Amino acid sequence: MFYIIGLGLCDEKDITVRGLEEEFYGKELILADRDMVETESDDILRNADKEDVSLLVVGDPFGATTHTDIILRARALKIPTRVIHNASIMNAVGACGLQLYNFGQTVSLVFFTDTWKPDSFYDRIKENADLGMHTLVLLDIKVKEQSEENLARGRKIYEPPRYMSIPQAVSQLIEIEEQRQTGILSPETTLAIAVSRVGGGEGNERIVCGTLAELSTQPNQVFGQPLHSLVIVGKRLHHLEAEYAETFAVNPKTWRETAKTVYGCDFE
Amino acid sequence: MFYIIGLGLCDEKDITVRGLEEEFYGKELILADRDMVETESDDILRNADKEDVSLLVVGDPFGATTHTDIILRARALKIPTRVIHNASIMNAVGACGLQLYNFGQTVSLVFFTDTWKPDSFYDRIKENADLGMHTLVLLDIKVKEQSEENLARGRKIYEPPRYMSIPQAVSQLIEIEEQRQTGILSPETTLAIAVSRVGGGEGNERIVCGTLAELSTQPNQVFGQPLHSLVIVGKRLHHLEAEYAETFAVNPKTWRETAKTVYGCDFE
Repeated sequence: MFYIIGLGLCDEKDITVRGLEEEFYGKELILADRDMVETESDDILRNADKEDVSLLVVGDPFGATTHTDIILRARALKIPTRVIHNASIMNAVGACGLQLYNFGQTVSLVFFTDTWKPDSFYDRIKENADLGMHTLVLLDIKVKEQSEENLARGRKIYEPPRYMSIPQAVSQLIEIEEQRQTGILSPETTLAIAVSRVGGGEGNERIVCGTLAELSTQPNQVFGQPLHSLVIVGKRLHHLEAEYAETFAVNPKTWRETAKTVYGCDFE
Repeated sequence: MFYIIGLGLCDEKDITVRGLEEEFYGKELILADRDMVETESDDILRNADKEDVSLLVVGDPFGATTHTDIILRARALKIPTRVIHNASIMNAVGACGLQLYNFGQTVSLVFFTDTWKPDSFYDRIKENADLGMHTLVLLDIKVKEQSEENLARGRKIYEPPRYMSIPQAVSQLIEIEEQRQTGILSPETTLAIAVSRVGGGEGNERIVCGTLAELSTQPNQVFGQPLHSLVIVGKRLHHLEAEYAETFAVNPKTWRETAKTVYGCDFE
């Protein structure tokens, strides 16, 4: 049997009891990077028709297309599969106080370079914004990346990991807004909520909200340790959502005032 | 401390190790129905400032506004809170093969009566459909409901639980489509995926897909045990999504043909 087991959000204690019963925690663990999962799936699946092989993944197994691909591959090889679900940012983001049914499609924001600034995320945020829906923006990470020189010379030397920060994400969003000028994102009047390490408990999880301008001027440490995600608040914002999130506001006064005057929240 | 602990999708084995460490599984359990959680929150929170009180909930704690409300109440009483996340249908629906980032907002479908047919879900599905996005439709359940007579006489006698079936859901969707006639739902050409007990493993989880007409004519047992959910497939359907789901098709031939001719999937 080939298992894909979701590890949940933070550390080894977030595995479910069902996942734990596979008892891999006493077994040999092989660290599989994205490259390995994508290019060596046949090695991973070898013998899974005769013995149990488990692929442990952060969050829920269906958060990444890579995992769907390997299940398709297992099926083609007639290997039975089983998925053990767990929490992922796609549902745990509810911790910020916004209701999950008010979210539209989720988007990813990648690191811009001088020559490559992919901006299709903007169209998705606009589609959500036009309907008043919130958007979960997943921020890029670079892990096991090679410099252009090392890549060219075939040297397996990797750069230190990089995680996109909230101020950088806001800066990229505003850069594209300034090009497109559709008015869906405004530093002063668009509310957003930064989340990191949701489910990590006191001293680990961070939820910080404010206008885009407020978030962009906070020092990085305000937002806690990576990974970070950013929620762009949609105009359907309900006053109970705004009240819940107010606890996390950089400035509760501007938060409430903006929710009231720009988003039309009807606080009692 | 007041804990809200997500139990995940199926049974007691889906709790995370972090949730289990609270050791409530050896403690007195009080069955709290929705009415109790909503109207007796002060009783539930009593003493939570001095001892640990845990509210265990199906799925993830932030799947229901009720749970957000009780956290707000705890905060007002200065009681520290902690949330333990878990899988919910909002992310585990990825098991059907459709990518989570192609989903728009989630909607709920309630049992119609002769005199009450709330249809705002249709507007939400249309908003998603117009953008080509998939819609997760959560089907109604009736648990601990009183008949009108028992309610009028103040008798705490409850009707047997009822769970909306997939054919009934399709019938209600088509009923509203026939009134509105915007063409977003068509028995013959709209594809949908029925899911039940996702994460429940062999013999428990069921995923069944086809056109709305095909799903509406299947016997109920095809769809397995409740709870059921239904995904309305959006026009952005990618051929890899269609291929993954094809395994679950009532009729793989019509599934693929519809995906190709109506949804424009480009199978190689």
